[in-house]
Amino acid sequence: MTVTGMDEVRDALKSIAQSQTQLLSAFESVSQRVSELEKGRGATGPSRPTNGTSRVDSDDVLDPSPTPLHAGYTTDPSLVSAEAGTQQASKSAAAIGKLEFPSRVILTTYPKQIGINPFPMEWGHADPVKRGPVVVSRNTSTIRRRNAIGAHSGSYSIYYALAVASRELPLDHKPDFTNTEPAVNIGPFPQWGDKKKIVAMDPWGHQVPWLFKDVMENENVDLRPTIAITKAHMKLPELEESVRSGRLVPDGKVCINSQGELAVTKVAVEPVWYLPGVAERFGIDEGTLRRSLFEFTGGMYPELITRADIKVFLPPIGGLTVYIFGDPAKMSDSSKRLALRIHDECNGSDVFGSDICTCRPYLIFGIEEAVKEAQNGGCGVVIYFRKEGRALGEVTKYLVYNARKRGEDRASDYFKRTENIAGVKDMRFQALMPDILHWLGITKIDRMLSMSNMKHDAIVGQGIPIHERVELPEDLIPADSRVEIDAKITAGYFTTGHRMTDDELKAVQGRIWEE
Amino acid sequence: MTVTGMDEVRDALKSIAQSQTQLLSAFESVSQRVSELEKGRGATGPSRPTNGTSRVDSDDVLDPSPTPLHAGYTTDPSLVSAEAGTQQASKSAAAIGKLEFPSRVILTTYPKQIGINPFPMEWGHADPVKRGPVVVSRNTSTIRRRNAIGAHSGSYSIYYALAVASRELPLDHKPDFTNTEPAVNIGPFPQWGDKKKIVAMDPWGHQVPWLFKDVMENENVDLRPTIAITKAHMKLPELEESVRSGRLVPDGKVCINSQGELAVTKVAVEPVWYLPGVAERFGIDEGTLRRSLFEFTGGMYPELITRADIKVFLPPIGGLTVYIFGDPAKMSDSSKRLALRIHDECNGSDVFGSDICTCRPYLIFGIEEAVKEAQNGGCGVVIYFRKEGRALGEVTKYLVYNARKRGEDRASDYFKRTENIAGVKDMRFQALMPDILHWLGITKIDRMLSMSNMKHDAIVGQGIPIHERVELPEDLIPADSRVEIDAKITAGYFTTGHRMTDDELKAVQGRIWEE
Repeated sequence: MTVTGMDEVRDALKSIAQSQTQLLSAFESVSQRVSELEKGRGATGPSRPTNGTSRVDSDDVLDPSPTPLHAGYTTDPSLVSAEAGTQQASKSAAAIGKLEFPSRVILTTYPKQIGINPFPMEWGHADPVKRGPVVVSRNTSTIRRRNAIGAHSGSYSIYYALAVASRELPLDHKPDFTNTEPAVNIGPFPQWGDKKKIVAMDPWGHQVPWLFKDVMENENVDLRPTIAITKAHMKLPELEESVRSGRLVPDGKVCINSQGELAVTKVAVEPVWYLPGVAERFGIDEGTLRRSLFEFTGGMYPELITRADIKVFLPPIGGLTVYIFGDPAKMSDSSKRLALRIHDECNGSDVFGSDICTCRPYLIFGIEEAVKEAQNGGCGVVIYFRKEGRALGEVTKYLVYNARKRGEDRASDYFKRTENIAGVKDMRFQALMPDILHWLGITKIDRMLSMSNMKHDAIVGQGIPIHERVELPEDLIPADSRVEIDAKITAGYFTTGHRMTDDELKAVQGRIWEE
Repeated sequence: MTVTGMDEVRDALKSIAQSQTQLLSAFESVSQRVSELEKGRGATGPSRPTNGTSRVDSDDVLDPSPTPLHAGYTTDPSLVSAEAGTQQASKSAAAIGKLEFPSRVILTTYPKQIGINPFPMEWGHADPVKRGPVVVSRNTSTIRRRNAIGAHSGSYSIYYALAVASRELPLDHKPDFTNTEPAVNIGPFPQWGDKKKIVAMDPWGHQVPWLFKDVMENENVDLRPTIAITKAHMKLPELEESVRSGRLVPDGKVCINSQGELAVTKVAVEPVWYLPGVAERFGIDEGTLRRSLFEFTGGMYPELITRADIKVFLPPIGGLTVYIFGDPAKMSDSSKRLALRIHDECNGSDVFGSDICTCRPYLIFGIEEAVKEAQNGGCGVVIYFRKEGRALGEVTKYLVYNARKRGEDRASDYFKRTENIAGVKDMRFQALMPDILHWLGITKIDRMLSMSNMKHDAIVGQGIPIHERVELPEDLIPADSRVEIDAKITAGYFTTGHRMTDDELKAVQGRIWEE
């Protein structure tokens, strides 16, 4: 046959596939309506349609003739099931190993399906084995045991999916956790066993491969750490200047040398949300939280809706990093002093030194003060949260900058600009932030290196007193960021200085563009 | 099979295609009759069950007595529909305004549903109006018009959902884009109209509120920019040192003063993926891409599966930021020189100065070289991608650090450590990276401030020649990061120097922990 002939075959196949989709869609719609008409009449006929729209039943589960598509894809809704059983699911995963997807897609799961057997999970139990591992992997051997919605690595699960899709990552890869153990020991603390205190991270996340070694080896369950602890040296040019100017004196331990090099313990934490606890922090019910997370992300994770039995969610967002200066054991020792900065990401300043805000200056000040506290026999902690641009993202942030600079950029209008565009002035929601403090064993803060009333209130609200609040020194405030800091102070940020009147705020003006 | 055999196949397929068409039309006719039956019954008595399980029909839409759950949530699968129609959806959104969710949840949508009327989208069309807006909002007035899966603001859509859930953000908020226009003009370039060249961002994303003003105002469609362009000043301590040491001379325009302060144009870009184009870049078919994105993120966005008609996806990942030094118009002027650094996020080094890698040193070097190129009459560009830890995330990164430092941390084992844990040595996938270069109008790179062969190959593969590759100078490489850089050079990173033998690599060792 000629090439043209093959083209015709291909076109015909495409046409068939397309009309089948339409047929099926039409059929299901009619079938459903017929079924309703029947119900309206009472139980005089067959009570349920036979076209496969029924809920899980054994026919579905035992379907002996799936037809895996090499393309792993179908536009045909008959092959899409919102509620296939889990033996089906298990079979799917096996096929996926070769990237030959089964013909049926499981759009979501339901609690009562055959074969679904989630690992028991008792959030907040002080015994990690009784608490149970967080199981979220969809690997063949694990998918039936899932007790969490979402995926590991926050938003990087998208890259994981690309790695599998492009066959870079074999699906049966088993991580080798040799030598990856935490570099220092932290906890356990009583707070780890209090389900009111930790709702947004897994307190046992760093010990997963060792706590649940048996489960991983014997039952072939795929578990991953959601916390990692390491040690590092860091070198910041500003700290070199601190040493040069005599503000910081090298001690060979925390501040290692005259270049201001620092020794630090670092903890990376991925978000793991216990949904009832998260809802409580926000003062809403779990159902509203689940439904909102589903609806207002554009329909992400239908299991948020269908799996009320699953209480844990690993959302696709950035996590946090803890930088500990001095002996980590001192964080939880109430006889030792603690200095703390909670810092929300601002890439433009933190990395690139933008002068429109005080972010990097306050971060560096926080690090320097943390180091000093450690040198004085206490401990210093800086925690970095991935919440760019008040968790509005950088596009919104830049739109706000433009509106400010093309307006008069007065402190009096500072928050209004963000509200006009984003609808809120801030989306960072500090409600979940204190979890990490509980996890670190912190029970009081001697010096809080932050002026934010929101952070302050969230921490104190969690029963952790703050003894002193430390402002960013005037001489570290870039000229163009006065608009931001003065607006914040007037709105409630901490200051020992003057809180401006409305008229004074109007007079604080930033650099205006010459266009 | 013989040619004759193939002919028979073709004929059979054609016959099937034809009969399916007939079937479909027969079906639609039956469907019509059912509709009429329903209407008839509606006039005489209750025509539908009272348990709310009916699919969309006009009765449903007009149902005067829905029972919104205050919880907005149900464990009753009968109230969950995988395929409700959009008039239903429309009502949902209205009810959500008060956060009184309708009792039915729409888990996913299908192309042929009543009321679904996606905005026409012709990806790659040079005329933005014919290309059409990216519509992803689920606002009442917009949900039926969606032509994209996902949500705005990347992973920050989760925070958006929290803002709505906690009633901080009114759902009917209309952004006021006054004065938010791009701070400088970029494009349009012929590349914007080439659907092979731009597949991972919306080339018209910065002009959305103005290009589609009529649609937004007259049809009340909720559209948001996915790109924003602003101007800023930035101040980096390393650049102050560059001026002090005479490497950089202030010119009052790019390098403003003796503190090394820089003037910069910044562009923030959120990911907008055209799925057929993304699949092509990865050398896979669209179906495999969609199915993988769904399955290996733990079941995110079932519309990836059910809405084959929707070709655009806004994934919940970080985007990128462009820093332009000098006149942005020179980027696309092939008579002017261009220096470029492509930088993938490394928070531990970029912000905190970790000495285990060369990230911040190379970034700062890139900025300095970019500034110099601008001062010499050309243009310098630094692009920052949110791909922390080779897009593996920071937890994995720290696990690798631990394994390295507890092992012997030799350059010869550098990549193996990551592979042991993550299954791959890198998940950054540079395949989509060159889009931003096309968008900026870049057609050649005079000085590439990167040694990565992956970045080089991706750019050259997109038809953008690189005239010179510039290594990170030896004196900027921190001692402990020799392991990384030497391993990379041996693996194929660019160098004008010596590429080590296996034995030499074994001898390159990092600082080992004293535990």
